[in-house]
Amino acid sequence: MSDGSTFSAHSFSAHAWGRNLPTYEAIRTMPFNDALAAGTLSPEQFRHYMIQDAHYLIAFGRALAIAAGKADDPDGLVQFAEAAKVAVVVERSLHADFFESFGVSGDEFARTPMSPVCHHYSSFLIATAHAEPYPVALAALLPCFWIYAEIGRDILGRAVRPNPYDAWIDTYAGEEFHEAVRAVIATTDRAAAAASPGELTRMHAAYRHATQLEWMFWDSAWRLADWPV
Amino acid sequence: MSDGSTFSAHSFSAHAWGRNLPTYEAIRTMPFNDALAAGTLSPEQFRHYMIQDAHYLIAFGRALAIAAGKADDPDGLVQFAEAAKVAVVVERSLHADFFESFGVSGDEFARTPMSPVCHHYSSFLIATAHAEPYPVALAALLPCFWIYAEIGRDILGRAVRPNPYDAWIDTYAGEEFHEAVRAVIATTDRAAAAASPGELTRMHAAYRHATQLEWMFWDSAWRLADWPV
Amino acid sequence: MSDGSTFSAHSFSAHAWGRNLPTYEAIRTMPFNDALAAGTLSPEQFRHYMIQDAHYLIAFGRALAIAAGKADDPDGLVQFAEAAKVAVVVERSLHADFFESFGVSGDEFARTPMSPVCHHYSSFLIATAHAEPYPVALAALLPCFWIYAEIGRDILGRAVRPNPYDAWIDTYAGEEFHEAVRAVIATTDRAAAAASPGELTRMHAAYRHATQLEWMFWDSAWRLADWPV
Amino acid sequence: MSDGSTFSAHSFSAHAWGRNLPTYEAIRTMPFNDALAAGTLSPEQFRHYMIQDAHYLIAFGRALAIAAGKADDPDGLVQFAEAAKVAVVVERSLHADFFESFGVSGDEFARTPMSPVCHHYSSFLIATAHAEPYPVALAALLPCFWIYAEIGRDILGRAVRPNPYDAWIDTYAGEEFHEAVRAVIATTDRAAAAASPGELTRMHAAYRHATQLEWMFWDSAWRLADWPV
Repeated sequence: MSDGSTFSAHSFSAHAWGRNLPTYEAIRTMPFNDALAAGTLSPEQFRHYMIQDAHYLIAFGRALAIAAGKADDPDGLVQFAEAAKVAVVVERSLHADFFESFGVSGDEFARTPMSPVCHHYSSFLIATAHAEPYPVALAALLPCFWIYAEIGRDILGRAVRPNPYDAWIDTYAGEEFHEAVRAVIATTDRAAAAASPGELTRMHAAYRHATQLEWMFWDSAWRLADWPV
Repeated sequence: MSDGSTFSAHSFSAHAWGRNLPTYEAIRTMPFNDALAAGTLSPEQFRHYMIQDAHYLIAFGRALAIAAGKADDPDGLVQFAEAAKVAVVVERSLHADFFESFGVSGDEFARTPMSPVCHHYSSFLIATAHAEPYPVALAALLPCFWIYAEIGRDILGRAVRPNPYDAWIDTYAGEEFHEAVRAVIATTDRAAAAASPGELTRMHAAYRHATQLEWMFWDSAWRLADWPV
Repeated sequence: MSDGSTFSAHSFSAHAWGRNLPTYEAIRTMPFNDALAAGTLSPEQFRHYMIQDAHYLIAFGRALAIAAGKADDPDGLVQFAEAAKVAVVVERSLHADFFESFGVSGDEFARTPMSPVCHHYSSFLIATAHAEPYPVALAALLPCFWIYAEIGRDILGRAVRPNPYDAWIDTYAGEEFHEAVRAVIATTDRAAAAASPGELTRMHAAYRHATQLEWMFWDSAWRLADWPV
Repeated sequence: MSDGSTFSAHSFSAHAWGRNLPTYEAIRTMPFNDALAAGTLSPEQFRHYMIQDAHYLIAFGRALAIAAGKADDPDGLVQFAEAAKVAVVVERSLHADFFESFGVSGDEFARTPMSPVCHHYSSFLIATAHAEPYPVALAALLPCFWIYAEIGRDILGRAVRPNPYDAWIDTYAGEEFHEAVRAVIATTDRAAAAASPGELTRMHAAYRHATQLEWMFWDSAWRLADWPV
């Protein structure tokens, strides 16, 4: 989607993608993603990533539900209520599939608190969904959808196969996910087209923060980061 | 469900149902529902009811989405995100089916604002979903589910058939709807079991207000009520 | 202020005041306000009004605090946090002064629930403060300030003196209150000037609903209204 | 206050303070605070700290206002609406006094975005104030009050005088601030005494996160930290 084909040149999404391209490129070329594509990522790093992602997805689902409750039309209410449900369904499949394959017990998950960056990103999405108008909430939620779709396809295109992380790679490169992502981009662009100049400024700030937090989330897994105190 | 078989004698739902039984009985025996069962309700009153119900269902869906975002576990998040979606789907079927059968044009719907009681009930649900903790939000949302299930079965048992309102009657008497209602009762009871004494008091107040508003909603349709100024 | 001198002809407040002038006129000429000015209002009606006003002011204070939390600049945060405090201070003076003069015991207040219209108006303000962006929240809060200032001055100009309700009349006609009201109008107009077209439409709807609810609140006291079930 | 004299041995605050004592000790002995007391902290680090603190105080004020709107009684509504106002007043005095003394122009402030930890802490407080019940919101807000009061007195007791940071030191060691802090502790303890077991667990989690973020905030100023991407 990064070729611009899914959005008009003057849309919010086109501007936001363009402005944050260096951060996207930094994510795409992170050691974590290189190692994932090469199949050389350590199971310990992948476990850290998965556990934090499971925590994150519940918070992402909550923020999506709050955004659904503020939707500017019934279609948006259905779209984001469904997305909230899907976030939890994906979290459950992490539990059922990856946690088992990579030896994370339910007990280990329950004992492992959110990492600082997971707590940061989760807090940011929930704060924005509650405190900000609908268009700004969508702008905060969009990078998680869009960057995963792009990274999924990018890794798919260069992954060494078979790869211990095949199942993960196939999830985010799949057409079903990409279709949902295109719909989120379209709704965000419609909301942006109806937003005030002040809201548009806050949409760009929210989008940028979420993009930075995506980089920080992967970086945190690579470093197996924990709370400093 | 009013025989108590679906809840334990000490549950929140058993207490709430018992305390509000006179209001439920007042709803069950309203002229609106007698006329609906007899098939003698005027199309004008049913149109008023349907248009307001369509407005209400969107607000109900918003409140359900906000409650989903505050759920105390991922199951509750899925349950109420799904319920939010279903509320809009039901609203759409009102539009597609009943509005057509009873001659409500899209234009008439768009021109007809919320009645005072619809605005009251909608505001109450949205205020409670945002401002109150999860158990109290559920207690406010429960009567709409439960009373419709009971009234649906009650009218089904005594309806003159064929009846101009057959399709409406079958919706709320159907097993699919009743299964969803039992699940909402169960989740509300679990939330009540974990609530503080102060929250339990506010749950009962919220449940009572929503039950009163159910009566007022039907009464408003019967009287074709509008804003006094 | 109704002569337009406190707002520019193109401001939100000028439009909103003009569009809702018939409702304002209906409030100004209500039997309740005529009887208050004449000093013939029954103590029973004034007690109903005061008790509901005490309930209302706490809810108004909550909605003001939520709006403060969403303010678009630190000045607005201070302005509405202060207004939230003042709402409770006024509620306390109702308790300390009027409740005593008119024989409302603390016990009677505690036993008297919100009337339907007080519950409706309170729910509407709290729902709007949480669910809507800052400009729309302000538009919902404005009529309570503005209409009281206007009605206070109107009644002051025609009140029979001495009047059993002198203390009440002096509160809302006082310059301190009017200065605060002008500041709320000014902030609402600044917020409107930065709002999107969709928000402006919702601002007008919120302003209209609050104005209608002002009429219904006084009418409810005149009728000593209670819940129908 | 850390000697326990301001709270009962069984209160939430006593437990929370005890459980997080190692983190408090880590804050008390940070290089930043040692250098501040010694008067050797670099102006550059103090500028970083002040600019981020100014950003933080506005967010802190917003979260206090939201908590005020959820207070379980009118006293709490007044207490936290006042605290929201004071947060902005303190932020303004930072601008008027420290920014001038230490050469931070209004332009430099406007150009400097929130640091990652300031954004994290602000998001956490705003998310908690909106999404969680009143007791949990208070538990998240308490450490900022309490730790500043303790650190202020600790630094006062060992500060080299005169000290370039005298004005800052006197602010947080002053009796007026300590009285406000004791009142916040007392309200939080009352809210905890009425909370459910689940809320109490979340109160402790919120208190711990806020305490960790206090450490991270000072550490960030010491390191002059910025966004990694």
